[in-house]
Amino acid sequence: MQTVWENSYARRVQWLKSSTIRELLKVTQIPGCISFGGGLPAPEVFPVEEIAAAAQKLLREKGAQSLQYSTTEGYQPLREFIANYVSESKVSISPDNVLITSGSQQALDMLGKVFLDEGDTVLVDSPTYMGALQAWSSYGARYQVIPTDGDSLIVEEMEELLKSGPKWVYVMPNFQNPTGLTLSLKRRQQLVEITNRHGIPLIEDDPYVQLRFEGEPLPSLIQLAGQLQSPSEKGLHSNVIYLGTFSKILAPGLRLGWIIAPNEVITKMAQAKQGMDLQSATFNQMLAAEIVQGDFLPKHIQTIRRVYSERRDVMLEAMQEHFPEGVSWTRPEGGMFLWVTMPEEVDTEALLGEAIANKVAFVPGTSFFPLAGHKNTMRLNFSNAKPEQIREGIARLGRVFQSAKGESTDVSVLV
Amino acid sequence: MQTVWENSYARRVQWLKSSTIRELLKVTQIPGCISFGGGLPAPEVFPVEEIAAAAQKLLREKGAQSLQYSTTEGYQPLREFIANYVSESKVSISPDNVLITSGSQQALDMLGKVFLDEGDTVLVDSPTYMGALQAWSSYGARYQVIPTDGDSLIVEEMEELLKSGPKWVYVMPNFQNPTGLTLSLKRRQQLVEITNRHGIPLIEDDPYVQLRFEGEPLPSLIQLAGQLQSPSEKGLHSNVIYLGTFSKILAPGLRLGWIIAPNEVITKMAQAKQGMDLQSATFNQMLAAEIVQGDFLPKHIQTIRRVYSERRDVMLEAMQEHFPEGVSWTRPEGGMFLWVTMPEEVDTEALLGEAIANKVAFVPGTSFFPLAGHKNTMRLNFSNAKPEQIREGIARLGRVFQSAKGESTDVSVLV
Repeated sequence: MQTVWENSYARRVQWLKSSTIRELLKVTQIPGCISFGGGLPAPEVFPVEEIAAAAQKLLREKGAQSLQYSTTEGYQPLREFIANYVSESKVSISPDNVLITSGSQQALDMLGKVFLDEGDTVLVDSPTYMGALQAWSSYGARYQVIPTDGDSLIVEEMEELLKSGPKWVYVMPNFQNPTGLTLSLKRRQQLVEITNRHGIPLIEDDPYVQLRFEGEPLPSLIQLAGQLQSPSEKGLHSNVIYLGTFSKILAPGLRLGWIIAPNEVITKMAQAKQGMDLQSATFNQMLAAEIVQGDFLPKHIQTIRRVYSERRDVMLEAMQEHFPEGVSWTRPEGGMFLWVTMPEEVDTEALLGEAIANKVAFVPGTSFFPLAGHKNTMRLNFSNAKPEQIREGIARLGRVFQSAKGESTDVSVLV
Repeated sequence: MQTVWENSYARRVQWLKSSTIRELLKVTQIPGCISFGGGLPAPEVFPVEEIAAAAQKLLREKGAQSLQYSTTEGYQPLREFIANYVSESKVSISPDNVLITSGSQQALDMLGKVFLDEGDTVLVDSPTYMGALQAWSSYGARYQVIPTDGDSLIVEEMEELLKSGPKWVYVMPNFQNPTGLTLSLKRRQQLVEITNRHGIPLIEDDPYVQLRFEGEPLPSLIQLAGQLQSPSEKGLHSNVIYLGTFSKILAPGLRLGWIIAPNEVITKMAQAKQGMDLQSATFNQMLAAEIVQGDFLPKHIQTIRRVYSERRDVMLEAMQEHFPEGVSWTRPEGGMFLWVTMPEEVDTEALLGEAIANKVAFVPGTSFFPLAGHKNTMRLNFSNAKPEQIREGIARLGRVFQSAKGESTDVSVLV
C-alpha cells in the first residue's frame, strides 16, 4: 500500500537500515544462545544495592528537585565531580568545561549536529567504533582512514590529509571498540602534535579507560594536548574534545555520559542539546552524583576489573583450545572486546547464520570499517557472558569454524 | 584569541543563540524572584513517595535488568501501557506503533532528523511551541502559518499551502503552549480531512491533554483520522503522528515521552534514535511502567488538575485586580499557560528587564511566532508558583505595567 510516508524521509536517513548489532541484540533473547555480539557489561556487577540506597536518600532529601526540569548543561555537582575525576589525569578542567549527555552516543550525535555539514570529511581509525560512523553518516560525513604503520602514524600522509581540511580526527585510545587495542604513547604524542599544529580538532572517545586489567595507564590525549599550552593560558584551550561515560563504570541503563571541551564549544553544544532533548534526566544525574560520593566508585571499578579480567582470560584460553590454526586474535589489556581475524577467504557474515544455528553469536567485522571490506574479521565481547558460558560459547564457535573448514572446497581456507 | 572552533560550526547551528526561556530559567534561581517564565510543573504534586516505592520494588525484583542496555524502541510493558492508554480515546494502537523517547523534545528533534531536508516547509500555528521551531530550524526548516479565521481554517488558503508540498502540519490541540487555547472540534475535523485528502502528515503534539480542569474533552486528531480509515484496514494507517509525554502527568526529570505512528515510521525513527542516544534510560522506563500499574495515575492526575485549576483561578483573579485596562488575556480550560496581549505599542521584551528588577518574570511572546512580530504579547505560566506567590507576582507585574504606562510619552499606550 502506498502511504504518505514512503517518499517523505529526509535524504540523511534514506540509507538507514537496521544495523547488524541491533539484530544481534535480538538474537541474545533466544533461550540458550550465548552472545559475544552485544556490547553489554556484566549484569552481575551492577551496584544494585548502592543504587537503591542512593535513590532512597535522594528522593527523601531532594525528591521534588530530582523530578523537576533542570539546566541543559547538567546537574552542577555532577559536573564538578566529572571535572575533578578527569582532572586527576593532570588536565585543568573546570565544571564549565563539562556537559552531561544521555550516554556517549548522544555526545557523538551532538558533535555531528554542531559541527558537520554534508560532505565533510572525518579521519578515523580502521576499524573504528560503528556507533560513531552511524551517528555522523546521518549528517552526511565521509570518512578517511588515519594512515598508520604498526604503532606509528605515517606522518607525511597524515599531513596531506590534515591539509585537506577534515572536520576532526576521531580515536578511541584505550581498549578500542572493536579491536580491544590501545594506542601507544608514541602514536598519542604524534596525534596530538600534528593535529594541534594543523589546528584540527581531535575527538578522544574514552569509555573504557577505567577497565584496565594490567599494564600501565597511558596519558590521555587531552592531557598531552594540555602540555602544549603555555602555562599562562588558564583553562582548557586545547584542540581536544573528550568523551566519557558512566555506562561502563556504573550502569548503561541510566544513560549518562559527558563531553569535556573548551567553554565556547560547551556553550554551542548546550544550545544544540536544548533542541534535542532539553536536558538529560535530572533524577539520573542526581542519582549518579549521590553514588559517586565517598570511595564507592574506585572500589567498584576494582570489582569490575577483576570480573572482566577473569572473563578475558577464560575466553583467550578457550580460543587457544578450540579455534583452528590460521585464526588469530588480539589480547587486550582491558575493556570489553577482542578481535578475531580469520584466513582472508573467510566471510564472517556468511558464518554468522551457522553460528546462530549453533546458539552462539558474534559481530562480523566489516561494519566497523569505514570503507567496508575485511570480511574475514569479527568482534567478540567477553564482559557479558559468565566464564562457563564463555567456555561453552567459544567451543561452539570453534566447531562452527571447523565445520566451515570441512565444507570449504579449498581445505586450506581455515587451516 | 583565535581558536580551532570558531569557524568550524555546521551551517545548521551557526544561528543558535541562547533562547529567552533558557535565560529565564536562570532568573528563577534568584532568591525572591517569582517566575511565570518557565514551563515547570508544580513540584508540590510530584509523587515522590510512590516513585521511591516503585524504585525500591524495581531494584529488588529486576535490578540488573533495569540498569542494563535495552532495545531502542523502548521497554515492551511500557509500550503496551501507552498503546492502551492512548487507545482509550478510541484509536487502534498496538505496542509496535509506540516508540519511547527522552521527553517530547526528543520526539520533535527526531521528526526533524527523519523527515526534514534543508529548505523544507512546515505549517504551524502562530504563535506555536517554541521548542518545535527550535528543533526544526536546526534542520533548515522554513515556516508557514496555518491560515485561520477564529475557530475555522481558511480552507481555500490551506489548500493552496498544502499543494505546495509542506513536510507536515504541526499543531498542539489542547491547552496550547503558549496560548493555553484549545482547537475547536470543527477545526480538528477540518485539519484531519484536508491533510488526509492531500496526503500531508499531521503532527499532533499533546503534552497537556490530561490537564483539563473544565469542559468536555475533544476527540484527538489521531482518533478523528482513524475514523477516515475503512474498517478493513487493520492497524494504524493514518497520516497523523501523535506525541505524548510523562513530563506533565508524572515528572519531567525522568525525561520520558512517546511517539505514536504507523509501523514503518516507528521503524525508521528507531533506526535514527539508535545513532542519537541508543535508547532512553532503561531504569526510567521500567520505573514508569511500575508506577502506572493499578489506579495510581488517574488519581494522581485528579490531584494535578485540582492544584493547577486553583492556580489558574488565582492568576485570573489577580490579573483582573492588578492589570491596567487595555491588557487582555486568555482563560484556558486546562494546561499550564495563559497568554497576555498588551496594547499594540508595548514591547514586552523591553518590559522584561523592568519586571526582573521587580523580581517577577514572564516570557515575551515574540519568540513563539514563527515569523516574529507580535511584540506586545507574553506567556505566563500558572502551574509552578504557589497561590500566594501568584497573587504577589501578578501584583508586581501590574505595577510594572502601570509604571511603563506612566513613563510612556503616549499615556494612551497602556490604558
